[in-house]
Amino acid sequence: MICVDDAKEMLDRFSYDRRIRVDVYDSLGCVLAEDIISDIDVPSFDRSEMDGYAIKDLNGRRFKLVAEMHAGDDRDVIVGDGECVWVATGAKIPVGANLVIPVEKTQRLKDDVIVYEPQRESHISKKGCDIPNGEKILKSGCILHERNIGIIATLGVRNVLVYGTPNVGVLSTGDELSRINDVNSLTLSAIVKQSGCSPIFMGTATDDIDLIKKKIVEAMKYDVIITSGGISSGKKDLMPIIVSEMGEVLFHTVKMRPGMPMLAGVIDEKPIICMPGNVTSCLVCAHVLLFPMLRKMAHLPLIKTIRCARLSEKAVSEYGMRRYLPVKLTDGVAYPTFRGSGLITSIAHADGFVEIKEDETLTEGEVEVWVF
Amino acid sequence: MICVDDAKEMLDRFSYDRRIRVDVYDSLGCVLAEDIISDIDVPSFDRSEMDGYAIKDLNGRRFKLVAEMHAGDDRDVIVGDGECVWVATGAKIPVGANLVIPVEKTQRLKDDVIVYEPQRESHISKKGCDIPNGEKILKSGCILHERNIGIIATLGVRNVLVYGTPNVGVLSTGDELSRINDVNSLTLSAIVKQSGCSPIFMGTATDDIDLIKKKIVEAMKYDVIITSGGISSGKKDLMPIIVSEMGEVLFHTVKMRPGMPMLAGVIDEKPIICMPGNVTSCLVCAHVLLFPMLRKMAHLPLIKTIRCARLSEKAVSEYGMRRYLPVKLTDGVAYPTFRGSGLITSIAHADGFVEIKEDETLTEGEVEVWVF
Repeated sequence: MICVDDAKEMLDRFSYDRRIRVDVYDSLGCVLAEDIISDIDVPSFDRSEMDGYAIKDLNGRRFKLVAEMHAGDDRDVIVGDGECVWVATGAKIPVGANLVIPVEKTQRLKDDVIVYEPQRESHISKKGCDIPNGEKILKSGCILHERNIGIIATLGVRNVLVYGTPNVGVLSTGDELSRINDVNSLTLSAIVKQSGCSPIFMGTATDDIDLIKKKIVEAMKYDVIITSGGISSGKKDLMPIIVSEMGEVLFHTVKMRPGMPMLAGVIDEKPIICMPGNVTSCLVCAHVLLFPMLRKMAHLPLIKTIRCARLSEKAVSEYGMRRYLPVKLTDGVAYPTFRGSGLITSIAHADGFVEIKEDETLTEGEVEVWVF
Repeated sequence: MICVDDAKEMLDRFSYDRRIRVDVYDSLGCVLAEDIISDIDVPSFDRSEMDGYAIKDLNGRRFKLVAEMHAGDDRDVIVGDGECVWVATGAKIPVGANLVIPVEKTQRLKDDVIVYEPQRESHISKKGCDIPNGEKILKSGCILHERNIGIIATLGVRNVLVYGTPNVGVLSTGDELSRINDVNSLTLSAIVKQSGCSPIFMGTATDDIDLIKKKIVEAMKYDVIITSGGISSGKKDLMPIIVSEMGEVLFHTVKMRPGMPMLAGVIDEKPIICMPGNVTSCLVCAHVLLFPMLRKMAHLPLIKTIRCARLSEKAVSEYGMRRYLPVKLTDGVAYPTFRGSGLITSIAHADGFVEIKEDETLTEGEVEVWVF
């Protein structure tokens, strides 16, 4: 039996480094696996920031309108002394122009334009001022969101190299699944999705050593295998035998409640994580140990939201065991919802956990709640 | 020109109430559109919470082992005075048994079991104690997560009625898109995804009134239409004309910077939201006005994360305009990143906005940052 922190450390050894190329359109939430270096100047020409009139300088207030430039117009128009050119927002600045007078600061008199308010700002975005050619503008490891996707789109990059995320085979075991509904494969698949990875449901297997082994062999095409059930001390608890025969057991039983029976192993260098069959134990192990492991393998950060609350009643951990107490938060008070590790309602309506360290007693009062 | 709050209110009128039935496996993150009422008792029988020995009562310490019950075994075994039955975790409790002695509190002597530590707890989950038959266990409107999906799975419910989410047609307009890369359709599609809705890229259109109208007619099969570009005051800014001809303009120009030119309208009762072509203006409008509208239509809550920080420099809003200042957070200090509304780097590396109310001056000091 190992402690929670040692179990975490053992699972932390697993990594996953496949890189794949995806269309930028599908890259939201992906982790970049290459630096993005600009090979163009953005903008690629001096560009007007406003609808207005481009002039050489403000010597005088009256300018003769000699041309119009709209966005997308590629001509090289020239502006001379005393002349102006209409420029739309985004239009190319005429050769010779040094500033743009916004249209609302001007008046049009036939072919002439009168400036009635002098300007200090040029309202010109110089070539390369947004992103200069050659700049490393995004670094490998950053998570793509709606804003930095904008940078990639600006550069005209159509696809990017990102970290692939593990495919996770999910298997529920137990003779009882013929009589009761399989819950763990659904909750575990949801946790896998939330971690950024992809669950593949492998079905259920009765407590039959050959059948379970066959299913695991099938699952070896995935990157991680998760099972539930069959890890306690009964005759039909076959997972410890199966994992030790097919690979290596890393740990079996963790000093935590609920979730104590959990097992983790390696088969052909791939992690196999065997969760307790009890539905709430299974979810607690998934949050505490599986989720961080999968986030790391997906190259995604683990973000814990901690909210302070007042615990409604005294809570203790067992001797040497860390306890994860599901609680519901109401008006700043944390009410324990735990009634038994086999009952789904022990955790289904909870908002988070209170972690009670080994041999600790929490009296009513301020606690930190690790919010789901 | 209307103020930001009025614009928000006008967009708040749109709703979307299609309900669809989805497989529970695909329901993570969906919003339930029906109450879930249990039509079974969970557990459906008195169930052992532990691996151990089921007995009638603790009169005496030595019990004769008469049977074994494993999880999934449906037999009705009887336990009498002085007898015990092995029960695995999850197994059916024998008729006549009132408590389970955990295996670790016992010793096995051939066919007898010695209890060496008396127990107060029964370690029996009574029939219906988790979810009783007839209970309304989940309410319409709740968001499905890994824990309440566990409840649905427990009841054996295979599919659930959830709110559908809008399909959003995304169109970029502008002659300049032949020369510069289209950025807005990618950033807007990402925002649409983050809101829980589904973007469909409609391509780009040059500034041609008939072409844009044709694209909008095509997009009428979707639930929301988003365009970018063509809403300023230039000759080629066609969207105000197009929307007023095809439907009704709700507002055009909003008292905000960046993002002032934004337009919203209705065509055949569907919202058409026309964003500025400038990339940072487009993203600001998307965060401030589009995202809340889409979240509401998807029946999802709008969660704002606010972080306090110290503003690195004085910042003011223009007369009568609300300002959204993108900032980067470093060591509790908010550094403005804005350099121009047409530059993607004005917002790409920012962590959030500082909202500066109309006619407000923020000096260096504590501000609230609305984190992305």
